[in-house]
Amino acid sequence: MSSSSPTPASSAHYDIVIVGAGPVGLLLSTCLARWGYKIKHIDNRPEPTRTGRADGIQPRSLDLLRNMGLKSAIMAHKPARVYEVAFWDPPSSGRGIERTGTWASCPDFIEARYPFTTLLHQGYIENVFISDLETNGVSIQRPWTITGFSSDVSQDPVYPVSVNLEHIDGSVKETVKAKYLFSGEGARSFVRQQLKIGVQHKDPIAYVWGVMDGVVRTDFPDIKMKCTIHSEHGSIMVIPREANMVRLYIQIASSTDEDWNPRKTATASDVQGKAKKILLPYSIEWESVEWFSVYPIGQGISDRYTLDERVFLGGDACHTHSPKAGQGMNTAFLDAQNLAWKIHAVEAGFAKRELLKTYEPERKSVAEMLLDFDNRYAKLFSERQPAASEVQAASENHGTEHAQNDNQFIKTFKESCEFTSGYGVYYKPNALNWSPDHPARSTHINPKGGRLQPGHLFTPSDVTRIVDANVVHLEQEVPLNGSFRIYVFAGDLSTTRKALRDLSDHLKSKRSFYTSYLRSDIDQVSHHEQHNPHSLFFTICTIFATKRSSIEISRDVPDTLARYRQHIYADDRPDRRFPESKSPAHTKMGLDEQRGGVVVVRPDGYVGVVTALVEGRGTIDALNQYFSSFCTNTFDDVMARM
Amino acid sequence: MSSSSPTPASSAHYDIVIVGAGPVGLLLSTCLARWGYKIKHIDNRPEPTRTGRADGIQPRSLDLLRNMGLKSAIMAHKPARVYEVAFWDPPSSGRGIERTGTWASCPDFIEARYPFTTLLHQGYIENVFISDLETNGVSIQRPWTITGFSSDVSQDPVYPVSVNLEHIDGSVKETVKAKYLFSGEGARSFVRQQLKIGVQHKDPIAYVWGVMDGVVRTDFPDIKMKCTIHSEHGSIMVIPREANMVRLYIQIASSTDEDWNPRKTATASDVQGKAKKILLPYSIEWESVEWFSVYPIGQGISDRYTLDERVFLGGDACHTHSPKAGQGMNTAFLDAQNLAWKIHAVEAGFAKRELLKTYEPERKSVAEMLLDFDNRYAKLFSERQPAASEVQAASENHGTEHAQNDNQFIKTFKESCEFTSGYGVYYKPNALNWSPDHPARSTHINPKGGRLQPGHLFTPSDVTRIVDANVVHLEQEVPLNGSFRIYVFAGDLSTTRKALRDLSDHLKSKRSFYTSYLRSDIDQVSHHEQHNPHSLFFTICTIFATKRSSIEISRDVPDTLARYRQHIYADDRPDRRFPESKSPAHTKMGLDEQRGGVVVVRPDGYVGVVTALVEGRGTIDALNQYFSSFCTNTFDDVMARM
Repeated sequence: MSSSSPTPASSAHYDIVIVGAGPVGLLLSTCLARWGYKIKHIDNRPEPTRTGRADGIQPRSLDLLRNMGLKSAIMAHKPARVYEVAFWDPPSSGRGIERTGTWASCPDFIEARYPFTTLLHQGYIENVFISDLETNGVSIQRPWTITGFSSDVSQDPVYPVSVNLEHIDGSVKETVKAKYLFSGEGARSFVRQQLKIGVQHKDPIAYVWGVMDGVVRTDFPDIKMKCTIHSEHGSIMVIPREANMVRLYIQIASSTDEDWNPRKTATASDVQGKAKKILLPYSIEWESVEWFSVYPIGQGISDRYTLDERVFLGGDACHTHSPKAGQGMNTAFLDAQNLAWKIHAVEAGFAKRELLKTYEPERKSVAEMLLDFDNRYAKLFSERQPAASEVQAASENHGTEHAQNDNQFIKTFKESCEFTSGYGVYYKPNALNWSPDHPARSTHINPKGGRLQPGHLFTPSDVTRIVDANVVHLEQEVPLNGSFRIYVFAGDLSTTRKALRDLSDHLKSKRSFYTSYLRSDIDQVSHHEQHNPHSLFFTICTIFATKRSSIEISRDVPDTLARYRQHIYADDRPDRRFPESKSPAHTKMGLDEQRGGVVVVRPDGYVGVVTALVEGRGTIDALNQYFSSFCTNTFDDVMARM
Repeated sequence: MSSSSPTPASSAHYDIVIVGAGPVGLLLSTCLARWGYKIKHIDNRPEPTRTGRADGIQPRSLDLLRNMGLKSAIMAHKPARVYEVAFWDPPSSGRGIERTGTWASCPDFIEARYPFTTLLHQGYIENVFISDLETNGVSIQRPWTITGFSSDVSQDPVYPVSVNLEHIDGSVKETVKAKYLFSGEGARSFVRQQLKIGVQHKDPIAYVWGVMDGVVRTDFPDIKMKCTIHSEHGSIMVIPREANMVRLYIQIASSTDEDWNPRKTATASDVQGKAKKILLPYSIEWESVEWFSVYPIGQGISDRYTLDERVFLGGDACHTHSPKAGQGMNTAFLDAQNLAWKIHAVEAGFAKRELLKTYEPERKSVAEMLLDFDNRYAKLFSERQPAASEVQAASENHGTEHAQNDNQFIKTFKESCEFTSGYGVYYKPNALNWSPDHPARSTHINPKGGRLQPGHLFTPSDVTRIVDANVVHLEQEVPLNGSFRIYVFAGDLSTTRKALRDLSDHLKSKRSFYTSYLRSDIDQVSHHEQHNPHSLFFTICTIFATKRSSIEISRDVPDTLARYRQHIYADDRPDRRFPESKSPAHTKMGLDEQRGGVVVVRPDGYVGVVTALVEGRGTIDALNQYFSSFCTNTFDDVMARM
């Protein structure tokens, strides 16, 4: 992609230098490598993670990995799956512990494809990315570290970042030029420190945690479940793992302790001894220990994620919190995904450079929500145990709306589940996410009745592909490739035939958002190309509210839409959440089964804008308005009305 | 497993010699290699299949591959999936062709986990098996052929088979001794010919087929569907394939033709020219051709599958038919699976040698059904096209029972779908499959109300595993490892508590079928062993008709059953076919939600017997009776009553 730049790229010039090969650095690197960028990726460890570290993949992260084509490689390692969390506390009378409740970790009211947490050693997860990178010619340079950097766009407008790199033994040094520098270095980020970016601690309490992975023999009945155990001897969190392993987290010290010392430590046998006591009356013996570590951690959040939109931070460099939320790797993945497509959109000439200013507010707001939920969730459980009826109400209520009669407890529980599953993560209104309050001139934007919220995830739905009758997951049909996903919900053809033809015609017009970013190699594109026949930045999916057999593409679908032959669907699959609906995908999006509507989904799967599907120029004008707010070009209607 | 034999195994002694490394030979080899047998496996081709040949995996075969842990390796090749079949015929007026209907290839009334046919090049499928074999130290010796063999148990009771093998260039020869010889050589089996086993032709009509794989450019709308096309210019079958390919089958000659010549041939361009004409008014151009072949084929079925239960035949060596049914590889898989576990049961000392006599009648009867269905199905469609209402009725009726008002057409269609999907394949009553008419002494055998039929597949169902709350597919929980699967449907504990304890106690008694086949290494078995802690021939699964959270294993499950900690389940998952049932697995098996019942499933997934779950000795007696009919030992009750 650097070919469009005026400065000739040499071996010392890169599109991006990525420091750190943990989850955040690897996901960023994997995306950008697939999209053709030149990457220098270093890590200061001599080899990938071999034991320990993060291991929880939340439900929505598994969707993301599937969208990247990496899910089956992850699942091939036979990870443990957590469907429920069990709570153990001292009994009301007597000693020891008893189970006081179990909760679905991703309850039924959340429409998740994979309603469980996937537990797998971080090393396996890293290797899936590393293998993918290798197929794109990128390898991690190890063990290398960053020793300095500068960024000055006035000195070099194309490669403004200069980075000093060094082998950790100091034997070799290298200075490279880059368009971007990314720090995925973890909590003690050198880059963050050099930029003098502060870290705020929302919860002033810090902890020392002990963590141990291994194989045990125990009669504790929930050893294959995620458990939170409180006893008179202390607290433990149990996390099942692949290959009969288990992870125990044990709180060793808290800044609320009288003798608080953040350097307090413990030996493996201290931790095992403490676990033994906490689990009484159950027994536990360690057959093997794979990993053991003691580390202090507090809730922290970086003041800034970037100062100049050239040097960025992500992952633990930006936010740290207790391991209890199980969110570290998942938040890191989403930091990287958010930044990856935006860098691509800017560098490929599609979006204005200002788009990069949305990275910090979008991701920092999520980190703040994470810390906030972490606190509220912990507080919730420390106050009281929920009644069985509350658990029932919280878990089984269908639909993501919160019922009128939910009490505060149930409400917080639901929000927490949505958030920790990943489905509740959302972005606030901005140029990309057009809320109903957006001052758009078009009245066709965000029509009434819609259930999709811009900045929130596109709701999963099953549909039938017309050309081959395959039942598919609509939200997974376009891979994470940097394309916006334009879902034309076509309703009933007898109502929308003209609206579809008008949309098709106007998309083709010279000054539409769609024709402004044609592929440079459009004449060489194979007729087999499924996703990007016209533009690398758009894929159009058309979904009819009818039975598959009633649609004949050549007769019913106008040419611009018909070119995406494998993205034409019938919304005819029964859905248990909407048993009365004949077109559940339309229904769950809140789109009329007759009139349909258009949903623009960002490359990362979050809804950008919803518009009505109308005859004439209404729909194209609305779409042109939306894209003109962040694209490099201006489009037809916008000009016409100025 | 040869360690128990009196003759010392040398390098020239094998448990089995397998000739042919197509689907039937490879599946047999893979099973036996996993179970520790010493295998000589040869193939006369210098390398595995590179292009062409069979490519259709039916729904039930995908279950089997999953049960072997091989499904994900198959799906990693991104096969095409066929959900529907389209029929094209000359229009009532005018020329060319028009679509006259589409049918689900595995309609909703069939309870399939994967309601589609998987289309993938045979070479990829073979390689999945070959890789698995390599992990067990077996490699295919190529290009080698068989030149002679003899089998005489009076000469050598342990290794009665002597086999002469030769490199195809004649440069090297080898004679080996074996317990068994298996011919998976295909239609022209040398072994079958040497044994002078005849082949019967059910349908006297033979055909010459042309088949072509490649990439096309066409405006024919159903090119991604399976299609049967009849036109005035001839007939074609279209099969979509992975990687944008398509396969066309074209009938080149039929023995009903006036100028019939079984050696009639055609060039690639003849076939392409014919396809062009048949598809008019649509156009078709070939961008590449991967494979092209012309071959004569008739329906044939071997008179015998074995003469002495030492030398066996399977796959195309036993049955050939037109490619239209798409059953070749699937029937081959099931031949191999049927034989594999029986050889293992006999060689490991679990079953009487007579068990091997069930291979031929079970598998030959299925081949006869296949040929019969092939004829009836073809005839059905040549007579008339079904009305839309018939298609609807045939496809959407839930449950496998045939509705009272089904007409002959719908009935035949349903049976055909069941059969071709693999779910309708069944075995007739014999020592393994105890029909309700079985002259068993126990009145607890095959209790009234049951919906499971011995000899038919165990119905798929979802349940929740107690220890980790994972939602699992019950029928997949025990891998294909040679074990019988004993499903104790435990109903309601308040009713069955004593019956469960009695069953547990009697299973442990010295003369039960269960204790008669303990593992020889039982003292060294890890407490992590999930499937076979006591015996290599049994796994016990216990399923309660209640919510997961109400079961406490240490309190509710007697010890023999509790040892299978990871095979204890709650039947608490909603099922759209039984929306009113709180315990759909019990309901769909036809077992009382209070009283439960016991289902014995053969290692290959077919139901062997169903018994009541009663207090006292009733259940154990019934089970002892069942196993005593083919096991090497006799058991307690049988002795007691003699």
